[in-house]
Amino acid sequence: MNVLIVLAHPERQSFNGGLVDVALQQLAETGCSVEVDDLYAEQFDPVERSERYPHPAVDAGYFYPLNEQRAHYEQHSLPLDVQRELARLEWADLVIFQFPLWWHAQPAILKGWFDRVMVYGGRYSSRMRYDHGYYRGKRALLSVSTGSPEQAFQPFGRAGNMVHWLWPMLSSLYYVGFDVLAPQVSYGIQGGGIRYQEESAITGHLERCKEAWFERLSSLSAELPIPFAGWDDWDEHGVLRHTAPLRWRLG
Amino acid sequence: MNVLIVLAHPERQSFNGGLVDVALQQLAETGCSVEVDDLYAEQFDPVERSERYPHPAVDAGYFYPLNEQRAHYEQHSLPLDVQRELARLEWADLVIFQFPLWWHAQPAILKGWFDRVMVYGGRYSSRMRYDHGYYRGKRALLSVSTGSPEQAFQPFGRAGNMVHWLWPMLSSLYYVGFDVLAPQVSYGIQGGGIRYQEESAITGHLERCKEAWFERLSSLSAELPIPFAGWDDWDEHGVLRHTAPLRWRLG
Repeated sequence: MNVLIVLAHPERQSFNGGLVDVALQQLAETGCSVEVDDLYAEQFDPVERSERYPHPAVDAGYFYPLNEQRAHYEQHSLPLDVQRELARLEWADLVIFQFPLWWHAQPAILKGWFDRVMVYGGRYSSRMRYDHGYYRGKRALLSVSTGSPEQAFQPFGRAGNMVHWLWPMLSSLYYVGFDVLAPQVSYGIQGGGIRYQEESAITGHLERCKEAWFERLSSLSAELPIPFAGWDDWDEHGVLRHTAPLRWRLG
Repeated sequence: MNVLIVLAHPERQSFNGGLVDVALQQLAETGCSVEVDDLYAEQFDPVERSERYPHPAVDAGYFYPLNEQRAHYEQHSLPLDVQRELARLEWADLVIFQFPLWWHAQPAILKGWFDRVMVYGGRYSSRMRYDHGYYRGKRALLSVSTGSPEQAFQPFGRAGNMVHWLWPMLSSLYYVGFDVLAPQVSYGIQGGGIRYQEESAITGHLERCKEAWFERLSSLSAELPIPFAGWDDWDEHGVLRHTAPLRWRLG
């Protein structure tokens, strides 16, 4: 199995970097081929803008990202960094996204990875979406760290529901066809800022989080993806049919 | 009243740019002072990284963003573009964020605006958050466009619940103390890509969306913000007290 780890953290020595090392070790032990896609190290620029397309294919006077993405995809002239990311995804059977939760979402460098790499026309279209998505058959997994302790994220907790914060990303991955596994969340990870605990307690906590990640990776192959509604469940207006399985209507 | 419009769209002639023009006209008519903060025009770089801090204040060998943000804030040596954004926010009574929904969230340039500008230590801390947040007394409003038609966003619609997609941003604004107004959503806005309608129908639709925005702005002052739970509602673990108002427990 080929595994791509997309890392979005500005410090390779961080806890997030440490979880990448854990994955490298565990996955190598089980015979996987692993590539780390360190967006910071590669200085990936996440801003989709007209300058990406120095030879506009559709309209030089009005920049509409989707049109230029589609045209450059069809002409095999996408920006080189986007082509590189697409090739990595083509190779991968499983994509792990490793990042800290910043402002209830992925860091900008990873948000823009979606904006730029998931090109319209090439990786999705009005018909090639959801369970007809381009990447169907491949799996994706979010591995997230967050500063606040787990207690704050419980139902009615101050920090809110973690599923809410990750839902935009989980849904985006399903949109392009991935089988999306349940996210791995490492709570209470403070890299030096707000501290809720003593130093020794933190060290022990970080070790336990790494062990949990190692264990999780050992049994990934047996996991079922998050169930999502699909084309057969929707009517011509894109709304759930009354005949769709009851589980969707309990949402 | 001072109004700051933060625009995050790569094409100033776009529908999103048009909504900025509508706001400029309407707000000027009512005597507001308005400034447009066009993140693309200013080439705002949204990636928080160690190179932002050429003279590390805490640890030159290990980049922890929150520590460097706090130290540089205290030393009045934050990056100049961040200082500029903070000054604009200081001036504003109302902040309007105008952007298209890309991959179920704001474009990367605006995601990183949160990552870089909402500095730890200066704009939030463990005690200065939520209803004790720095920006309490100021108001914020998201004005969002999206390509899919409104039908797809209804309950059980294919495109998902719009509140889910905006919740991370709405919550982030409340986290730093803003009174957050209900978002303004313009559905079915296709800038040239996926089209669900004929050209003339689109033109009429865009005009109606602009009129709705104009109307909304005319009555903003009477609006109440979205209610959020606050410090008095949480126990020492950050979990809602049993004595908190019932409305919070109904989620």
